[in-house]
Amino acid sequence: MITANHSTSPDQWPELDDISAAAQADLARTLRASIDQKTKPLGALGQLEDLALHLGLILGTEKPRLVNPQMVVYAADHGIAAQGVSAYPSAVTWQMVQNFLNGGAAVSVLARQHGLSLTVVNCGVERGFDPHPQLRNLSIAPGTKDSTQMPAMTKEQCWQALHNGRELVQQLPGNTLLLGEMGIGNTSSAAMLLARLGQLPIADCAGAGTGVEGPAFAHKVRMLDQALTRHADAQEPLDALAALGGFEIATMVGSIWQAARERRVIVVDGFITGAAVLVARALWPRVLQRCVFAHLSAERGHTLMLERLQAKPLLHLGLRLGEGSGAALAWPLLQSACVVINEMASFASASVSQAVDAAIAK
Amino acid sequence: MITANHSTSPDQWPELDDISAAAQADLARTLRASIDQKTKPLGALGQLEDLALHLGLILGTEKPRLVNPQMVVYAADHGIAAQGVSAYPSAVTWQMVQNFLNGGAAVSVLARQHGLSLTVVNCGVERGFDPHPQLRNLSIAPGTKDSTQMPAMTKEQCWQALHNGRELVQQLPGNTLLLGEMGIGNTSSAAMLLARLGQLPIADCAGAGTGVEGPAFAHKVRMLDQALTRHADAQEPLDALAALGGFEIATMVGSIWQAARERRVIVVDGFITGAAVLVARALWPRVLQRCVFAHLSAERGHTLMLERLQAKPLLHLGLRLGEGSGAALAWPLLQSACVVINEMASFASASVSQAVDAAIAK
Repeated sequence: MITANHSTSPDQWPELDDISAAAQADLARTLRASIDQKTKPLGALGQLEDLALHLGLILGTEKPRLVNPQMVVYAADHGIAAQGVSAYPSAVTWQMVQNFLNGGAAVSVLARQHGLSLTVVNCGVERGFDPHPQLRNLSIAPGTKDSTQMPAMTKEQCWQALHNGRELVQQLPGNTLLLGEMGIGNTSSAAMLLARLGQLPIADCAGAGTGVEGPAFAHKVRMLDQALTRHADAQEPLDALAALGGFEIATMVGSIWQAARERRVIVVDGFITGAAVLVARALWPRVLQRCVFAHLSAERGHTLMLERLQAKPLLHLGLRLGEGSGAALAWPLLQSACVVINEMASFASASVSQAVDAAIAK
Repeated sequence: MITANHSTSPDQWPELDDISAAAQADLARTLRASIDQKTKPLGALGQLEDLALHLGLILGTEKPRLVNPQMVVYAADHGIAAQGVSAYPSAVTWQMVQNFLNGGAAVSVLARQHGLSLTVVNCGVERGFDPHPQLRNLSIAPGTKDSTQMPAMTKEQCWQALHNGRELVQQLPGNTLLLGEMGIGNTSSAAMLLARLGQLPIADCAGAGTGVEGPAFAHKVRMLDQALTRHADAQEPLDALAALGGFEIATMVGSIWQAARERRVIVVDGFITGAAVLVARALWPRVLQRCVFAHLSAERGHTLMLERLQAKPLLHLGLRLGEGSGAALAWPLLQSACVVINEMASFASASVSQAVDAAIAK
């Protein structure tokens, strides 16, 4: 268990560098010129070119290279699951963590495919785990409280989780963090955070999660509405996080800050990891500059969430699994963006003629 | 140079197996059940699940594995380029082939990233090449004729190209063919084939290609319209291909037939490779069952083309480069689909509880 330094409230943590500030403008121009000189029509690699530029800016280099990427899956249980807001019982959180560690889950096989280091963090699962080399125990408590009845966590627990997430990333190698999560009931927490921080109706933010439909879905929306009403005073980001969130979300928020501070590339998976970014952005707007959004999820509120984050996701595959599976699937595109900027020939080096119009214009 | 067997016209080649026929229905059910039993909510991996099913059906197995994937880039010059329909001079086709072989082009670096074997086929580039281990010489002629003035190729040349493409694939190892192409002027040929075979106005099919805009674009559309009018009688697929197409497109059509016949997975890149599939589908409808569409291109006519092919592309990245770059970028998703079906645990094997509703239903 990490012992956190509680001397500062997380919303007082130091300000982050602005990677789009004037000092970075030269780098942006250099990166753009480098991309434009590659042997292809201007802009012909579309979003991959924007991604290459973005990765260069995050890492502060003309030659971005992604080193020792870390897939971290944050797991915790949610008291609100007792209200029947999920198609699965809470026990599945523990079972799926075992599945991650045994190598049989989607994120396990995809991380293996791409050579991503996989760490699972117990941020507060109901049932404990035997030690495992890929498991970190940062459990705050065996699940949050039921937010329809009381705050999901205390302010102290929330701070602790944020500090845990921060210290976790300090101890991880590499320059890229891929965010994943597991927690039965956590689309509910994420939907409430989106509704609260995005000032949106909960009916627009809630979705099927693991497969809640029909009357069960109407029930889910009622429960979330009840929790939001109970915690109507929790308007500030940290208050909302404590009242409505989850331990895995709070721990992720701390990790996002630390990763952003170190200028790591943060690959955001789907709806729940996006909710953590939403909270982090509300506290420290510049974290957004370090985030790459892996995919547009089929989870209903995700489109609105990405709009709020002004994010353009890389994949549109109708995924709604979480775990970090979307981040893992998008990962090779980040590598491709680097390969394009680092390895492609320029028109000059390859002796390829430029566009006729461009030649005339010169 | 391959000596083709001209004993049959390509439109008389043997009929292909129907992979969605009754004999395959059992396999489809087995694949679907296998995917549904993986430790994830039903359908939570979205389009990746459909892809896994599709790959299993193409390869005729419950455990699809992609073996020795072959990226083949078909290159040729186009007589219509003389009409100023491209932003680049025809010399760029030859220069880019050199760039492919020297390892500096987008498709070169992406193929290297993913361990794809790369072969470049000279189907009819204006200028010849020195021998190179990755280059196959199947040149029909140094570029097609200008289709605004006469048929792009003779019927004999068209047949020869089709036979070349067929024999080329017979000689390639592996069970997966990724299609790429290079040819200044070939978005014009592809747009005309789409207009003719799709019975669409050329103004809806033509796009910017390598970057043709404004008055130059209006000129391009006029030239294509002129060619289509001149060859108004070329309505049958092979007639349209000969009158309006290119040597690289015709060679690809033959390769598509052969790959489909061998039940290889065919990964279709963008607009020009899509035009080859459009011709192949018109001749042999079942080739479509073997095709995976890599991405939706930014080239204007591609949306209409994919609609005509009832294709759902994997990526939406605003690419418009060709070369096979989109096929290479989509490649890891095909591997992921296989990894999911071959390596993920089932609910039973991982001792994970199933959905509450599902449990009740049973």
